[in-house]
Amino acid sequence: MVSISDLGEFGFIADITARLPGNEAVVLGPGDDAAVVAVPYGRVVATTDLLLEGRHFRRDWSGPADIGAKAAARNLADVAAMGAVPLALLVGFAAPPDLALAWARELVAGLAQEGARGGAAVVGGDVSSAQTVMLAVTALGELGGREPVTRAGARPGDLLAVAGVLGHSAAGLALLSAGLADPGSLVAAHRRPQPPYQAGPQAALLGATAMIDISDGLVGDLRHVADASAVLIDIDTASLPTGGALAQAASVLRQAGPLDWVLAGGEDHALAATFPPGTSLPGDWTVIGRVLGGHGVTVDGATFQRSGGWDHFAG
Amino acid sequence: MVSISDLGEFGFIADITARLPGNEAVVLGPGDDAAVVAVPYGRVVATTDLLLEGRHFRRDWSGPADIGAKAAARNLADVAAMGAVPLALLVGFAAPPDLALAWARELVAGLAQEGARGGAAVVGGDVSSAQTVMLAVTALGELGGREPVTRAGARPGDLLAVAGVLGHSAAGLALLSAGLADPGSLVAAHRRPQPPYQAGPQAALLGATAMIDISDGLVGDLRHVADASAVLIDIDTASLPTGGALAQAASVLRQAGPLDWVLAGGEDHALAATFPPGTSLPGDWTVIGRVLGGHGVTVDGATFQRSGGWDHFAG
Repeated sequence: MVSISDLGEFGFIADITARLPGNEAVVLGPGDDAAVVAVPYGRVVATTDLLLEGRHFRRDWSGPADIGAKAAARNLADVAAMGAVPLALLVGFAAPPDLALAWARELVAGLAQEGARGGAAVVGGDVSSAQTVMLAVTALGELGGREPVTRAGARPGDLLAVAGVLGHSAAGLALLSAGLADPGSLVAAHRRPQPPYQAGPQAALLGATAMIDISDGLVGDLRHVADASAVLIDIDTASLPTGGALAQAASVLRQAGPLDWVLAGGEDHALAATFPPGTSLPGDWTVIGRVLGGHGVTVDGATFQRSGGWDHFAG
Repeated sequence: MVSISDLGEFGFIADITARLPGNEAVVLGPGDDAAVVAVPYGRVVATTDLLLEGRHFRRDWSGPADIGAKAAARNLADVAAMGAVPLALLVGFAAPPDLALAWARELVAGLAQEGARGGAAVVGGDVSSAQTVMLAVTALGELGGREPVTRAGARPGDLLAVAGVLGHSAAGLALLSAGLADPGSLVAAHRRPQPPYQAGPQAALLGATAMIDISDGLVGDLRHVADASAVLIDIDTASLPTGGALAQAASVLRQAGPLDWVLAGGEDHALAATFPPGTSLPGDWTVIGRVLGGHGVTVDGATFQRSGGWDHFAG
């Protein structure tokens, strides 16, 4: 087996960067002190995320391509949630020196593949040795001359809508934790979420007043919007998709139903946005509630009892 | 002692972001899904680096403010080495949950302080728990409408010059490794390098043909320039500063002289650039050699015997 230490740091960098496609935004790609990316309207959107083995992923549950894709997806979804179009990714990668080169190549390929799905090329990065695998991904995007859609603009009367799936990743994780692999679509959704990137700029063009990427759970993340906008957001559970594979997984796992996954499950990277009342939404978006005066988040008018979020420093 | 887990993830983020100053480039700072930074001329320079406890720093040798400052410096120097002006930093921070809040605050303060020295505000980041402290810093900058100065433009006949110090950090590390603290200026240079950021755009305006940040050692990093430019670069040791504290440290440590530190020591983040022959250089820049036809790097016309670089995956 060829390990990454067999190539050495610079050989490894050369090996993986040779496999990376560019795109028209890349003025200068990997290989120099820094990359240069064209940002046509003079404003760059930037976000960064850490993905650590044992905390954000397990090598025995996810393959390298999925881990790489997920690392890209988390960041690209954050760019989309501002109403922006992804342009570029930078990747810090740390790993044990005896890691198989093939594994590292697959990870980078998965990352580049998901980047390409979102429109972003890998333009730079850094490598280091470490005892476990770690990824630090930064995504850059641009707003096409529009203002960013923040968490702070929701107003009483607005519609609440989502694009993308809810609860699929959490259900897939529950299945994996129970040693199950069916329904496979949910396991796949946990291993490789498919955020609806295009829905972000689409929402901005439709006049979205606030938007967020659902990374920690619908209720938990909507609390950030409610706080930033100083409003109350009410979710109508009857409008949430809970059938099909989700209902099947709940049944297999002897749960009352999939609603906890849908309301509190993270990592699907759906987008939730608020729109002025009467906005006609295209098929990517489903209305799931409304914005009211007050503060916080309610579910069918009542307080939601689960925590609905993940705290990295909770005891 | 208050630990970061006492505040929880969101409390910790709120605590540290409240202490971060912005600057005029920040359209939207920390707190949303992504930050937005103004890039006046429509091209963003971007670079990312990992800084891991036990590999890049030791908590018993460096205090938190110095570790934070060093993490910023590495990245800002990469931006400067493209001829660009730093604008913004994004910071991924992982740490054990029982880490003292005061330690984390000092680290972020050091990072923000060095960012401000370079002209960059901290605009975003991510936090996670981990067994050791890790930093993933991304720096963004802009070129002021100029072309980036890459590693690839050096031409035979060009002057080779450096801005900033060489060998100070390596000498400081050697002193610390020997349990010594004098000369203190070298130990300080190891703990908190002071890259000459302004010299990067200055070199671009002076017509620099190639430029690089000296992070792994002068000879090792100039090899990258020589390779990318397909030239031979010769260093004239008589023009390298080797007196003062450097000579004193070599004497204390019973070394033949400080030249190895100057030629092969990394982490000072000096800038090395090549300029057309006859360029009149201001005081920040010292001519230390010349560019010739051929390939590789020589020292006083001869091959340099030390490896002159650091390989993160070397056995």
